[in-house]
Amino acid sequence: MGSRIALGLSYAGQHYSGWQSQSSGNTIQDHLEAALARFAGEGNARITTLCAGRTDAGVHGLMQVVHFDAPVQRPVAAWVRGTNTFLPSNIAVQWARAVPDGFHARASATARRYAYVLLQSPVRPSVEAGRVGWVFRPLDGAAMVAAARLLEGEHDFSSFRAAACQALSPVKTLAPIRITRSSMPVGSAGSDSASCYWHFEFEANAFLHHMIRNIMGCLIAVGQGSQPPEWMAQVLQARSRKVAAPTFSPDGLYFLGPVYAPSWGLPARTAAYDWLP
Amino acid sequence: MGSRIALGLSYAGQHYSGWQSQSSGNTIQDHLEAALARFAGEGNARITTLCAGRTDAGVHGLMQVVHFDAPVQRPVAAWVRGTNTFLPSNIAVQWARAVPDGFHARASATARRYAYVLLQSPVRPSVEAGRVGWVFRPLDGAAMVAAARLLEGEHDFSSFRAAACQALSPVKTLAPIRITRSSMPVGSAGSDSASCYWHFEFEANAFLHHMIRNIMGCLIAVGQGSQPPEWMAQVLQARSRKVAAPTFSPDGLYFLGPVYAPSWGLPARTAAYDWLP
Repeated sequence: MGSRIALGLSYAGQHYSGWQSQSSGNTIQDHLEAALARFAGEGNARITTLCAGRTDAGVHGLMQVVHFDAPVQRPVAAWVRGTNTFLPSNIAVQWARAVPDGFHARASATARRYAYVLLQSPVRPSVEAGRVGWVFRPLDGAAMVAAARLLEGEHDFSSFRAAACQALSPVKTLAPIRITRSSMPVGSAGSDSASCYWHFEFEANAFLHHMIRNIMGCLIAVGQGSQPPEWMAQVLQARSRKVAAPTFSPDGLYFLGPVYAPSWGLPARTAAYDWLP
Repeated sequence: MGSRIALGLSYAGQHYSGWQSQSSGNTIQDHLEAALARFAGEGNARITTLCAGRTDAGVHGLMQVVHFDAPVQRPVAAWVRGTNTFLPSNIAVQWARAVPDGFHARASATARRYAYVLLQSPVRPSVEAGRVGWVFRPLDGAAMVAAARLLEGEHDFSSFRAAACQALSPVKTLAPIRITRSSMPVGSAGSDSASCYWHFEFEANAFLHHMIRNIMGCLIAVGQGSQPPEWMAQVLQARSRKVAAPTFSPDGLYFLGPVYAPSWGLPARTAAYDWLP
């Protein structure tokens, strides 16, 4: 009946219970579907959306992509402004496109990209509370880079997989993890000299539940010297969640978005990407 | 009796009713003084702080500086961790220093620095809601730069002064306003190509109440073509709030901090400065 629509969506995750619809109603999907239904004006008709990558509670989305089958005809650009009228202030549709019925936000994605932003500072976050992870001890970048290299390529990532994970297979292909440090202009004295932001960029064909947060926990253990870089290979080979470090905070995790074949004609990147600290 | 302490403080302003203490208790000063009192452990003894620059409701602080006279002796570094224990998650003391009794956070400051971050996008902010101002129409940077030049130097800024302003004189000396545009990596098509962030940096010996937000309203009127750049000189010369544009949103305004003579030995800059979008 209806035509298939794809939407790009950005949100600040710290106020929501994650992507996936819940009876609480306070998830991104709940707010989006409620706004779509109000804009479509179909009374109680539900519009069900399917997303490229479900995000956990507290995780942010810079370019989540969803698709749905529109029960009513609207000019495609109207799905942006119309839906945004009914969304909370920290969730917004960025673009809308009519797509062929063969497009599927999850199945058509060939890869997903995430970033983790980590504040290293003797003082906890304040201005950026809820938007960055935090470590107070200085990290060894070279050790983290060496450990990260051991994860590249196709592996069974069971050691980094949450118990609740619904993926059919624990085997995923991880691109090289990019780790960069941005130093800050610091004061003339004191504790600030130990402060910086670390950026971690991840890309894989798909990720297991909590996979990035579990990898982050292990990278930080290596960066702080609790484990040598080679330990990462042992964790990977164990295929057991028990040997890895605890799941790290969701606060600094950003879903940058899925990757689709250019032939779908969708915007390739989020407008907000450069806004990361 | 006690020794004088200076603190550097960062906060996300959108959840608070500004700096200045109120009966509501939900101001930055209220939270800071409550935390200091709890850390000092003096029961009901109030610790009164005096700040370098009072910020409005919704305005953020990257390096607010305060001083107070400590009623108890504590190791100076303990004022950072101890106070942070009792502060909300989006307010944090960044450093503490013992200073001579002659130091005064407001009177000793020779200048104040602010930044305004403005999102230009067809779509309202989402991830950055409450943290950036927003315009949906493209701005003319050259026109804004030309208008900003007319404000440089010593002037009577009455046209940009809120009725409630308590400053003794409307004459202030404004340094050249730095205006920069950061373009974003944009998608292959559509509305994103009109999106960018504009950064405005302000420095003056002191600012009147609402002065920057009123200047921002005028700069945006020029940038959108509602007024020519020369109009800014007319507004300035009128010395009347009635001729200027409406006060712009506090969302994108950041107090970068005061400037002090190096002889006070205080950290010169905020650690979070580079974190601005």
